[in-house]
Amino acid sequence: MKLLEDRIKKDGQVLAGDVLKINSFLNHQVDPQLMMQCGEEFKRLFAGEKIDKVLTCEASGIAPGVMTAYVLGVPMVFARKKKPSTLNDAVYWANVFSYTKKVNNKICVEEKFLHKGENLLIVDDFVAHGEAVKGMVNIAQQAECNIVGVGAVVAKTFQGGSDWVKDHGLRFEALAEIDSFKDGQVHFAGEE
Amino acid sequence: MKLLEDRIKKDGQVLAGDVLKINSFLNHQVDPQLMMQCGEEFKRLFAGEKIDKVLTCEASGIAPGVMTAYVLGVPMVFARKKKPSTLNDAVYWANVFSYTKKVNNKICVEEKFLHKGENLLIVDDFVAHGEAVKGMVNIAQQAECNIVGVGAVVAKTFQGGSDWVKDHGLRFEALAEIDSFKDGQVHFAGEE
Repeated sequence: MKLLEDRIKKDGQVLAGDVLKINSFLNHQVDPQLMMQCGEEFKRLFAGEKIDKVLTCEASGIAPGVMTAYVLGVPMVFARKKKPSTLNDAVYWANVFSYTKKVNNKICVEEKFLHKGENLLIVDDFVAHGEAVKGMVNIAQQAECNIVGVGAVVAKTFQGGSDWVKDHGLRFEALAEIDSFKDGQVHFAGEE
Repeated sequence: MKLLEDRIKKDGQVLAGDVLKINSFLNHQVDPQLMMQCGEEFKRLFAGEKIDKVLTCEASGIAPGVMTAYVLGVPMVFARKKKPSTLNDAVYWANVFSYTKKVNNKICVEEKFLHKGENLLIVDDFVAHGEAVKGMVNIAQQAECNIVGVGAVVAKTFQGGSDWVKDHGLRFEALAEIDSFKDGQVHFAGEE
């Protein structure tokens, strides 16, 4: 998605350790028009697939997730990182390893929001090692849902997350695929 | 907003301690079409006001916040509950007291996303005691922004948050105003 790649080149900051900071339009300040365009693009990419629900993870997945669900005309469920105090019903849990903090966190989804046989599109803002995606796939499998595919707004394809998804027989689509950082610059797949 | 009140009556669950659980369409599973309608309603309510940005708080504020920002054609900023590891720049901090856990949590916004004199609409999913709103007002004041008003998707007006906003000279609009729970039923302001 050229528009997104251009925005990353313009506003992204490459930090030490292959970290890309794009919090001016994706995960702190958010550009809602761009998020809607991302939703439209996911709809186009997954056209022909039956999608009953979008599954994403708080917090940064919510903006692209809700826009994708909006254009698809389906509900969105976001996995929670803490079990809310009002959540007394049965939940699916999954571990999510944090590479920055070297600890296992957990995410959960209330069981009643995922039904056996439902067709889920998993959407995430950023797929690097893909730990949040692995957790969401785990939860979808516990619920015996069918995973239509995984849509990432941005993927760092050299960190294994996208390969993990494909190796598990799932379709993976990223709107911007970063295959390396060179001299502090973002390099996209397919670029010279 | 009749549509929202009807949905709360239909899908909300009243739990012990005046807790209303509406996680089937607002804060776990999300109805994107309803969120867009909430955004349209905030736009209508605040028509005539100059709004430069929507400020909300992760995680449940993001869905209504991003839809409101979308229809207004402005960016959204969501306050974060943890300082992300990639966030090395200066931030505004505010305390947010948690009534359920009886502890002070913190929220933060990177300074560069709020500019002196900017006109902010604060949006939150649920205003009860209003602690998250107080934190966002505090941050907006630190940044010397102008607060156009506070928009809540749902307010429990008997728990003080909405009064606090008005007592501080700020406009408060809720799309559904709950003034009491009677016999496990939601009672809206203006209802018989």
